Amino acid sequence: MTKKNRNQGVEILAIGTELLLGNILNSNAKWLAEQLALIGFPHYRQSVIGDNSERLEEIILEASQRSQILITTGGLGPTPDDLTTETIAHAFQTSLVPHKAILEDIKDKLHGLKTLPKCNLKQSLLPKEATVLPNPLGTAPGMIWSPKDNFTIITFPGVPSEMKKMWEETAKPWLIANNPSKKTIKSKTIKIAGITESALTEQISDLLKNENPTVAPYASLGEVKVRITAQAETAQEANRIISPVETELGKRIGLSIFGRDEETLASIVIDLLRKKRETISLAESCTGGQIASALTSIPGSSDVFLGGIVAYSNSIKQNILKVPFNLLEKNGAVSSAVVKSMANNTLQLFNSDWSIAVSGIAGPSGGSKSKPVGLVEIFIAGKNTQESIQENFGLHRGRDSIQKLSVVRALDRLRLFLLMQS
Amino acid sequence: MTKKNRNQGVEILAIGTELLLGNILNSNAKWLAEQLALIGFPHYRQSVIGDNSERLEEIILEASQRSQILITTGGLGPTPDDLTTETIAHAFQTSLVPHKAILEDIKDKLHGLKTLPKCNLKQSLLPKEATVLPNPLGTAPGMIWSPKDNFTIITFPGVPSEMKKMWEETAKPWLIANNPSKKTIKSKTIKIAGITESALTEQISDLLKNENPTVAPYASLGEVKVRITAQAETAQEANRIISPVETELGKRIGLSIFGRDEETLASIVIDLLRKKRETISLAESCTGGQIASALTSIPGSSDVFLGGIVAYSNSIKQNILKVPFNLLEKNGAVSSAVVKSMANNTLQLFNSDWSIAVSGIAGPSGGSKSKPVGLVEIFIAGKNTQESIQENFGLHRGRDSIQKLSVVRALDRLRLFLLMQS
Repeated sequence: MTKKNRNQGVEILAIGTELLLGNILNSNAKWLAEQLALIGFPHYRQSVIGDNSERLEEIILEASQRSQILITTGGLGPTPDDLTTETIAHAFQTSLVPHKAILEDIKDKLHGLKTLPKCNLKQSLLPKEATVLPNPLGTAPGMIWSPKDNFTIITFPGVPSEMKKMWEETAKPWLIANNPSKKTIKSKTIKIAGITESALTEQISDLLKNENPTVAPYASLGEVKVRITAQAETAQEANRIISPVETELGKRIGLSIFGRDEETLASIVIDLLRKKRETISLAESCTGGQIASALTSIPGSSDVFLGGIVAYSNSIKQNILKVPFNLLEKNGAVSSAVVKSMANNTLQLFNSDWSIAVSGIAGPSGGSKSKPVGLVEIFIAGKNTQESIQENFGLHRGRDSIQKLSVVRALDRLRLFLLMQS
Repeated sequence: MTKKNRNQGVEILAIGTELLLGNILNSNAKWLAEQLALIGFPHYRQSVIGDNSERLEEIILEASQRSQILITTGGLGPTPDDLTTETIAHAFQTSLVPHKAILEDIKDKLHGLKTLPKCNLKQSLLPKEATVLPNPLGTAPGMIWSPKDNFTIITFPGVPSEMKKMWEETAKPWLIANNPSKKTIKSKTIKIAGITESALTEQISDLLKNENPTVAPYASLGEVKVRITAQAETAQEANRIISPVETELGKRIGLSIFGRDEETLASIVIDLLRKKRETISLAESCTGGQIASALTSIPGSSDVFLGGIVAYSNSIKQNILKVPFNLLEKNGAVSSAVVKSMANNTLQLFNSDWSIAVSGIAGPSGGSKSKPVGLVEIFIAGKNTQESIQENFGLHRGRDSIQKLSVVRALDRLRLFLLMQS
């Protein structure tokens, strides 16, 4: 077997026996892969290895011979099976020294314990020349360390929230500053709702053959994203390359484009409401609080979101939302008449400008021939708007997908109303 | 770097550029890992590589030097970027020949087309000595092929449903018949809330040294999991080995253990309520519907969950939850007096057996010196219970973590009440 000293690109190594046992999904690798693509780092390989120092050392040394940057996740915790840092040091015959800044930080986080538990002391040890990758959320810092020329290791803990925060605050800026290609790769993601991936692909098939910028669609639940990626000498130049393709997409897809990059349906709806100085309230049955959760995950949502009722039982629909008993009796809870009543009564109760009501059969049980699992009724009430939407997401979908698709559909419809009235 | 010809164990290689771009999760690797563990095949490494024949050949040859069995997924389709079979053949200098059984099968599946499209013809080509791994669902068969002594490649398509069916019908029986160790590996995951990973580690440090079963903790937001893994001749024997360690963990950790394997705090709370035939309602401010979402993500939650109010604005706390104006004015919305009033009024409004109220400062703005970001007030009201909980999750946490930790803490406290009263 010939081995080329390719020495280019990044690889990702996820460390943890739980991955080899199939206990958890390697969502960290997916997330990092997406982030690397977004900042234009070529990434050719991912690996998973267990909590075993011999095999871990082997794969670290392999990576050092073929890649420029190795990103690891996992194995930075305080327990004996957390071996990442000491194995890296052993692989490159380097000793570990306590880093004072980490010690102070851990002490702070453990609420001023006078003596640190021994297991946490371990977390302050890094190679002397390593740059600390601070962990704003936990006691496991990572590091950025180059044990040899043209090879850098970046370590992250396995807890996704910690890894993501550390990526944003320290690793990503470092990578951008150290991009060897000197070319800027810029991506813009156009987010679309209400069109399937295959319909979209037909509509833009000519653009998918583009070379600079490249245009690639990918689907997630209820949404399609189109990523436009340009390579150029400068960011400004890259933006200039992206811009006409973005304009062209806008012409072809129009209002189905709801946002860009980090924007979400919830953030867009909140922005639109804020601009109009309007407020919203919710009456959720089958979505069980997920629309409220989506809105309140956005900082500053309290400017426009007054609150909601999760009306999971019929008695609550009657007693709090004042849906008439006859209406429920005659039409059933999953009916346009009932969601209409829910939405309009919520509008009054909260004295908001808009109200969304959702009722459906998320399954797995509770379906019938006339009202199968997957049937969802949505009603949007505004001061001058009454809109009833019926969706059938299909029996084959799981509970989780039916709930999430309902959230997307409800927010997207409200978005369209807000746009049309502005 | 020394390389041992270890020649044992299985590795998994997922092939597809979409994985390297982070467009999809590698759920195939997780599923296969779980299946391998269940039939007792030691599995030491997973890799992901793109649709690139040079890099693919390199990693196949590497695997042939360190493992006994390489399982690949992906790259068996009819399009030009599906390269798996031809790259494997090239790596071992073998030519591909049409397999008649595959040709017949593809013809059948394409509804008796007289001449096969050229792209499907490609799918009938395998090394002469390879055993066909039939694909009952699609046109992409896999193979089981030993290009050299003590090394076998098993190829699967990337479509999960096809891979799973092929695993069950052909690959799994073949592996069981060819198992060199004849051992089963079983895991049980114990889930814990209310203890930090480092505190837990100190409490069970002796158990972490165990060899069979092994005991390994890992942390996620607000929870710690301990995985117990046993190797044995039979599944029954493995369970017998796991059982005393599980009992010992139970003795040391006690009530902080909330569940096992697929159980969640929400599913456990719902089970406990169902057993007692009791109901719950919610008044959520800073968690914005996330407790309701967690409960309603569980099928059958409508048995016990009546509903909730997301009271995001003070006026809703007053008008719907009937929190007295003076109380809000004097104490502020994030205060034990206000959450107490919210919880007890919700209990009455919904006529439920339990009610949880949460109010806090999730940030990023809205904090003050006396009430910093991260401060969360929780109140649990039952017919005979009044419990006030104040948490300070810390300024350094993001909005998302503060909300999620509040959900964990609220559900965990309710769980403890439900246990104590049963």
